[in-house]
Amino acid sequence: MRGCFVTFEGTDGSGKTTQIKLLYGFLQEKGYDVMLTREPGGTSISDSIRALLLDPKNREMKQETEVLLYAASRAQHVREKIIPALDQGKIVLCDRFVDASLAYQGYGLELPLEKIIQINRFATGGLTPDITYFLDLPSEISKERLQQRFSLHEGPDRIESKPDEYHQKVKRGFTAICSENEERIVKINAARDINTLHEDIRGHFLRYLAARQ
Amino acid sequence: MRGCFVTFEGTDGSGKTTQIKLLYGFLQEKGYDVMLTREPGGTSISDSIRALLLDPKNREMKQETEVLLYAASRAQHVREKIIPALDQGKIVLCDRFVDASLAYQGYGLELPLEKIIQINRFATGGLTPDITYFLDLPSEISKERLQQRFSLHEGPDRIESKPDEYHQKVKRGFTAICSENEERIVKINAARDINTLHEDIRGHFLRYLAARQ
Repeated sequence: MRGCFVTFEGTDGSGKTTQIKLLYGFLQEKGYDVMLTREPGGTSISDSIRALLLDPKNREMKQETEVLLYAASRAQHVREKIIPALDQGKIVLCDRFVDASLAYQGYGLELPLEKIIQINRFATGGLTPDITYFLDLPSEISKERLQQRFSLHEGPDRIESKPDEYHQKVKRGFTAICSENEERIVKINAARDINTLHEDIRGHFLRYLAARQ
Repeated sequence: MRGCFVTFEGTDGSGKTTQIKLLYGFLQEKGYDVMLTREPGGTSISDSIRALLLDPKNREMKQETEVLLYAASRAQHVREKIIPALDQGKIVLCDRFVDASLAYQGYGLELPLEKIIQINRFATGGLTPDITYFLDLPSEISKERLQQRFSLHEGPDRIESKPDEYHQKVKRGFTAICSENEERIVKINAARDINTLHEDIRGHFLRYLAARQ
């Protein structure tokens, strides 16, 4: 049986990386055959592409270049890692996917959505998540969390250091994407404590798996 | 007045790099404001992308990744270098452009042409050459020339080392592209000596410039 493709989306600071790891640990413990990945997915080609994208020195990068590099990294990740794992029947948990490109590049950078969709369809060969958890957090809280992160660790990367207005457009983009894909995207109120959130997500996912069989 | 965008195309070994340099030198000497470029165009971002594409270690690179990386490199080159030069009224001579992607990736790799066109239209913002010189050389002669080059210098790169059948598909692709774009592409018989070829091209280009005014 073909595996199950699950993505996590959310604005920076929404806690999606914490939550995807918790779900991964839980599923592993329960004996599921599960793979955790994120773009660029640890393939060496995609890693090199990601290094270009996030390097703060590359400030002269044009928006169209950014879109195409994300898509290139995704094409490699999907074909080298995700599809083979799904073909082996695994549950694949992926931190961000096409929805993020639509939100950050389509809505955030105001590039034509239809083009972003076309390019990503080419990159993924049409692969769409079976289910997507969108961690929904009011902008003020994400911002606070991110500022804490930067003061504790290193500074923001090239994407994170863009202005507030950009992040608000991204947030509105995610809202639009969620309402257009209600059959696939599960909106999760992320303004709750880590454990409550985890129990909510794992409960939902176990019910989803049961219903799928 | 907006400048003039000229591209040179041809299979590997057709002599296009020699010829574009000769035309460049000639135009410079005549006092024209001319820029010589080739993809990736010497922009630091595009150079890093090209390094990924040509590295023989990246054999596991998927075809879709290759298409998107070429397009990303082109998006940067067009916007950072070519369009600003055209806006300054320069003659821009470019060694390979979108036609090469159609020939190598669309025809050579048998990827859907319509997709390659869409992705490149996004990358270039629709910029099309005013005139293209296609250096036409029978496959056997290109092959001979390339083998000489490899025995003199280093081995072939990741693209050049693909099998014969691939290069024949590329060649047929160029033939199709030429016949579909007769108003733009000038086919040049490249099986002649360097100077005759150069005189042919420069004569044609000067007449083209005169007719354009």
